[in-house]
Parts: sequence; structure tokens; C-alpha cells
Amino acid sequence: MSEPLRIALAGLGTVGTGVIRLIETNAQLIARRARRPIVITAVSARDRTKDRGVDLSGYAWHDDLTAMAALDNVDVVVELVGGSDGPALTLARNTIAAGKALVTANKAMIAHHGLELASAAEAAGTPLKFEAAVAGGIPVIKGLSEGAAANSFERVYGILNGTCNYILSTMEDTGADFADVLSDAQRLGYAEADPTFDIEGIDAAHKLAILAAISFGAKLDFAGVDATGISRIIAADIAQARALGYVIRLLGVAETDTSNGALSLFQRVRPHLVPIDHPLAHVDGPTNAIVAEGNFMGRLLFQGAGAGDGPTASAVVADIIDIARGERGAAFSMPVAELEPMGRAETGHRPVRAYIRFTVKDRPGVLAEITAAMRDAGLSMESLIQQGRADEGGEVIIAMVTHEGPELAVTQALDLLKGSDNLTAPPLWMGIIGD
Amino acid sequence: MSEPLRIALAGLGTVGTGVIRLIETNAQLIARRARRPIVITAVSARDRTKDRGVDLSGYAWHDDLTAMAALDNVDVVVELVGGSDGPALTLARNTIAAGKALVTANKAMIAHHGLELASAAEAAGTPLKFEAAVAGGIPVIKGLSEGAAANSFERVYGILNGTCNYILSTMEDTGADFADVLSDAQRLGYAEADPTFDIEGIDAAHKLAILAAISFGAKLDFAGVDATGISRIIAADIAQARALGYVIRLLGVAETDTSNGALSLFQRVRPHLVPIDHPLAHVDGPTNAIVAEGNFMGRLLFQGAGAGDGPTASAVVADIIDIARGERGAAFSMPVAELEPMGRAETGHRPVRAYIRFTVKDRPGVLAEITAAMRDAGLSMESLIQQGRADEGGEVIIAMVTHEGPELAVTQALDLLKGSDNLTAPPLWMGIIGD
Repeated sequence: MSEPLRIALAGLGTVGTGVIRLIETNAQLIARRARRPIVITAVSARDRTKDRGVDLSGYAWHDDLTAMAALDNVDVVVELVGGSDGPALTLARNTIAAGKALVTANKAMIAHHGLELASAAEAAGTPLKFEAAVAGGIPVIKGLSEGAAANSFERVYGILNGTCNYILSTMEDTGADFADVLSDAQRLGYAEADPTFDIEGIDAAHKLAILAAISFGAKLDFAGVDATGISRIIAADIAQARALGYVIRLLGVAETDTSNGALSLFQRVRPHLVPIDHPLAHVDGPTNAIVAEGNFMGRLLFQGAGAGDGPTASAVVADIIDIARGERGAAFSMPVAELEPMGRAETGHRPVRAYIRFTVKDRPGVLAEITAAMRDAGLSMESLIQQGRADEGGEVIIAMVTHEGPELAVTQALDLLKGSDNLTAPPLWMGIIGD
Repeated sequence: MSEPLRIALAGLGTVGTGVIRLIETNAQLIARRARRPIVITAVSARDRTKDRGVDLSGYAWHDDLTAMAALDNVDVVVELVGGSDGPALTLARNTIAAGKALVTANKAMIAHHGLELASAAEAAGTPLKFEAAVAGGIPVIKGLSEGAAANSFERVYGILNGTCNYILSTMEDTGADFADVLSDAQRLGYAEADPTFDIEGIDAAHKLAILAAISFGAKLDFAGVDATGISRIIAADIAQARALGYVIRLLGVAETDTSNGALSLFQRVRPHLVPIDHPLAHVDGPTNAIVAEGNFMGRLLFQGAGAGDGPTASAVVADIIDIARGERGAAFSMPVAELEPMGRAETGHRPVRAYIRFTVKDRPGVLAEITAAMRDAGLSMESLIQQGRADEGGEVIIAMVTHEGPELAVTQALDLLKGSDNLTAPPLWMGIIGD
């Protein structure tokens, strides 16, 4: 058994205390697997006096977390402070500059500064690892960058935000509307007091940008993710989708596109309709799941707990065990210099079967106006459900699924209807995820 | 970019030719990910003249595959010959003895000789890798031994044989009986001409023993797997299970047991009833899926193609990429000396809800005899379906689900009924997989 691997832990929120509990609980097993003990030698957080439910007396306390990078008795700094910039980023830069390994669960920091940090880590010859930044306890970064590394990926997509999945699957089970389920979720701890990052798709976009860079060998481009959240989904959408054989899930989808001659990257976070016989249709509650399609392996699915102290700690400590074992994979599966800068894919030509929901006045001529716009845009309809809303005076929901056609036809049809006084709210369209 | 990693390929069946196609098709991408080119320098198979649909003219041919271990221009030998002993084992031993890396898809050889080979590889300081031996294209060995390495596993179970899953899900879809679906599966290439290893659970047992050793840090004990296949499942079982809210799947299940004071290992391959809301209930066709439950990560699911040339080649080449990257994980997640010898778990005390199917004569007193035996064994019934079989003269199917009780009560009740002339065939019981 070799020398212990010494860990400094910056940030003692639920994940940080989870890491302490895990390393204490599974110490012997981890030492057998890592071929050396893993010991925490230093901890830091904002408030020393707070009761966190774990005994910190055995660990050296440091008030200045950014100074932990310079400690002599530390091999790995674990950054669990959070925030894309500020102290987390300073600590990350200092750690790498000091030639120490960095493990982080910080998806925002990696989405914004991952390439800079990975380049610095390569130059310093030190590992940078962030399994916990994507999909909590699911080892999907390892799965894609190592387990599936022999494949050219055709598409990578999945459920990357547990809060949204909890809200959507609860709307499905209860028939309740978005706002009611969100406030329940906040009360139960499944959603933050400020839920914007989750429900508007930003958190999923952070994760998708990281997965896309790894899968497609692309320069990470968080700003290139087209992100829309779930706040416009209403109970009627869930019901109509169900009647048509689908459930609604917020999916991140990434693929490459060569349709305009150059290799470009498509990255989108949006609610989608998922056929009920698709594996992602059975992913309920705060679970995450990622599908990767490779040119030799076919379709691979990873599913598990996307958040929470235990699962996230599991991913953090898996990274630490990798470092203890001497494994030195590139942060994004290949060296930063090998990652290709890719343009952002045009979307107008993408083939899509679309669900479109109109909220309209209950009067003659409405359907004629809608169908005329569809005809003029070259968009043809596969099925339609029209239903009055008992609780809204004179308002009618029209939900339809189109035949496959270019996305441009969908957006053109909706453009033609813009400003129509038959519509009581902007229409909502969602793509149907296909095979 | 470093020197190429040089591969010798022994065995050119569907997987071997798949590996050639993969390495040729994805060469550039693999070189970026592996940080060096991967090149095949030597190939060997029984018949040089056979048309395999790939051009072998660029690769040095060797008639004696076991001699490939000694080639100077080879860094990694890929063994795809098959068979637990014979030339495959000779080649494996020679390769390791020559200090070269060994990659194999040979589950039978690893199940029988994995510890010997892993010890030799450790002594020689050379990698031994066999991702493709378990669950085809699913990187579950990496997932458990690295991605989930921070966890103490509570249970590992899953669908490990695509042939059986194809047969069971086809029986489900068509209502056909086992023998008919098997012969269709053989015609379609989903089952071998001699299907014994698949349908009697031996193939799944090979894989389960490997997963159990990795997950529980146990000395590999293939002979300790209690394996029963699917050949006794009849159409009525599928129908009754469905009526009760279940599907039938052949599952490998492994867990540790401390009930008798010492740590022992439970390893079983058997058909189980799976509740229709369980993720494994939606795994259809020749797909594999593995669930691992860890004390911090919770439940993790891996799902994908369990066989086929492309998926298996994907796993083989992932191992080669790991070796190219200089990663040197222990074959069974920890050094062989750290693996604990574990006794085989007693099963009588295990709590189970059981499905029991009786095939009985249609005459008075039969149910009284069965229920008396259950009462005497202390086994209580939750639900029962009795149904005449139109096609069998006077034969009746009685299917029941018991309340939870010790397995011993189930086997005792069936022992009490042994020899009863009311039964026209031995009863079949299956456990219900629980949360």
C-alpha cells in the first residue's frame, strides 16, 4: 500500500459534507480499490461555526479557501464552492498553477472556463476532473470519454436536470399546473428558492456543453447552446401529449451537422415529446438519464440519481480514486489542442415532427387561420386535438402533431400567425425525439 | 503524438472483423482520443482463405495464433478465439508471460481462469482487460470498477443474456411458447445452433461471476453461481405474470450476505418477475441492462446492446484505448491479493415474494392439497389465478404470488407436494425482484 493521497476540501455544503461522510464510511474499501488510503487533510468553508452534522475536529480548518491550493500536505483540491467565477475559479487556477490535481462538481465553472482550466492542467501535467459536474452520481463523463471512446458519436441526448424532470413527471401524475408543482418542489427541496437556472434550462445547458465537447471532440461552446426551459408547459400540454402517446421531458440534445459543408455543432436544451416506448419516457422524478448513440456500439443509456449529496459525493470520490490510481485522462477525453472549433449548426433544415399547442379564442375561423398558415408554410398535420378549457372563459386549446418536415416550416407557420388576435397566448412548439 | 500502439488480433469471427472495421473506420478519432495511433500489425485465425468481408492484405498473417504472444512488433494481443481453455488460454498465458497487454472478450475464460490471469498480469506489470466479456457494448466493468468505485455495493443485478431476453420479450409480445420462439430466434441469428449456454443461464453466470468479483471485492467464484435458465417458462407464466403486473426476465443477481456471521456471497441467475414500473421491465429484445445499488450513489442503470459485432468491438477497442492512454487499473478493480475469499451464501433465510406455477389435474381436492402444503410450510398467499388450458385435456394452471417470507418456506411447500399425483409437472417458482 502506497502513501495516502491527501485531499483538501473547499466548500462544506451538502455535497462537501457528503464527501466527508463517504470517505469516512467507505475508507477501507476505497483504500483497497485505490491501492492507497485517501485522507482529508484540510477543509474550508465560509462559516466555521455552522453545524453540518459531521465532526470536523480531525481536519485542519482554513479560513481562506483560495489559499488551500498552496498547502504542502495536499495532493488534490476538491472545489465544491460553486459559482462560475469568484473564489471557485481563483481556487481552481491556483490549484492547477501549484501543480496539484483539481476535482470539482462545478458545472457552471467548467462550462464557462473549462478549456482554460484544461489547458492549464495539461501544461502543468496535473489532472483536472469533473465527473460530478454532469448528472450527479452517473459516471457519464467516464462512460463517454473512456467506455465509449472507440465510437464516433451520432447523437448524445438526455435528461440532465432533475428538478425539471421532477416537475414534469409530477405534472404528469397529478394533472397540476407548472406553478403549483414548482412551489411544491421548492417546499420539498427538489427546487431552489431561485429556480431560474433549473427551470429555464441553464443548468442543463452547462451539462450539455460539457458532454458535447467530450463526445464530439469539439471546443466547448456553452454560449452556443440554444436553451429553453419548461416554464411555458401547461397541464393541457401534458394531457394532450399523453393522449397522443407521448410524455414531455426537458432534453439536452447534441449532435454534429455537416449539411452546410462544414462540421458544425448542434446543441439544444428544450422540452421534447418522448414516445412512451422510449427508455427516457420511464425516467421519473429527480432522475437523470443520458443516451449516447455511437457508430459501433449503437444506443447506450446511463440512468441514475442526478443530484443529492450521496450521488454527487460518489462522483467526486470516483475522480479522487482515479487520481489515486495514477490515471491521467485528458479532461475532455482528448487534449485541448485536438478539440475542433465548430460553428453553430443552422436549424432551419433539421427534420422534425413537431407538437404545436395553440391557446385560442373559442370562435369561428380560428382553425381556418391556423391551417392556412400551416399550408402556406408547407407544414402538414398528422393529428389534432381540440379541447375547451373548463376553467378559462371561452379559451380553447388546439394541440397538433405535424408530419416530419423542416423546422423552418414550423417557425414560418408560427411567424405567419404572429399578431393574430385569435391567439390568446404565443403558441408553444416542441420537437418529438425520434429513433 | 506518440508511437503507435501495435495490436495482434487472434480470432477473426464477427467480433474480430468488427474490431478491424472499427479501427479502420474511426482511426483518426481514436488517435486523437488515445493520443497515439492504434494499428493492427498481425492477425490470426483458423482459416486463412475464408471471405470475411474485410481486406486483410495489409496485416501480417500468422497461422499459429498462440505464437502471436511472442511477436516483437506487438504491444497488445486481442484474444477473440473463445473457449474457456485450449488455444485461447494458452495465448492469454503466453501473452502475459511475454509482458504484453491482453484484451479479451472471452467471458468463459475469465470466469474460469480470471484470477490466475490477473495475478500473472500483476506480476508481469501488464494490463489485462475484458470489458467486452460482460454485456457487449455497455461499459459496465469500467462503470463499476471506476465510475462507481467510491461505493460499497448493496446489490448488482441485471439482464446479462440477450438471447434469453429476446426470447422472453418475444414470448410476451406474441403469446408463443418457449420452443417456438427459440427456433425462430435460431433462424434469425439471435440464438446459437446449440443454445444451451444461453438458455440454461451459463453465459449469464459467467458474466455475473465477473461482475460480483469486481463489485464486492470477492475472489471470483463462477462455480458458486446458482444458475437456472428459461427453458421451463411457458406461455401461461408470461400471461399470468402480466395479469399480476409483472414481466419475466432472466436476471443475474449478486449481493453479499452477513446473516450467518461471516461475509458470504450470493450469486444467482434465474428468471424473475419484474414489476412493470421497474426500469428492467422495459428492456426488450437482445438488450442488456445492469443495475448497481451503491451506499452513496443509489441506483445506477447501464443499458445497451449486449452482443453483436459492433457493440462488442466497441468494448474491445475501449480497452485498447485505455492501454494506449497508459491506464493500468487492476483487472478486478483491486489487486488479486485484496480480493476476499467468500463463502457461498445460504438462501433459506432470504426474504422473497414468490411466483409459483402449478400444472395440475382438473379434479376436486387439488387446491386443498396445495394450500395445505403452503400452510404447513408457513407460506401465505397474496394472489392466485387459476385457469384451464384449452389445449391440454383436463390440465389446469394455478399461478400464485406469495406474501414475503423466507425462501425456505417456498421450497418446503414444494417439497411437501413432491410426488403428489395431482401435479402433472414439477411446479416452477420464481422470485419477484424488489426495490
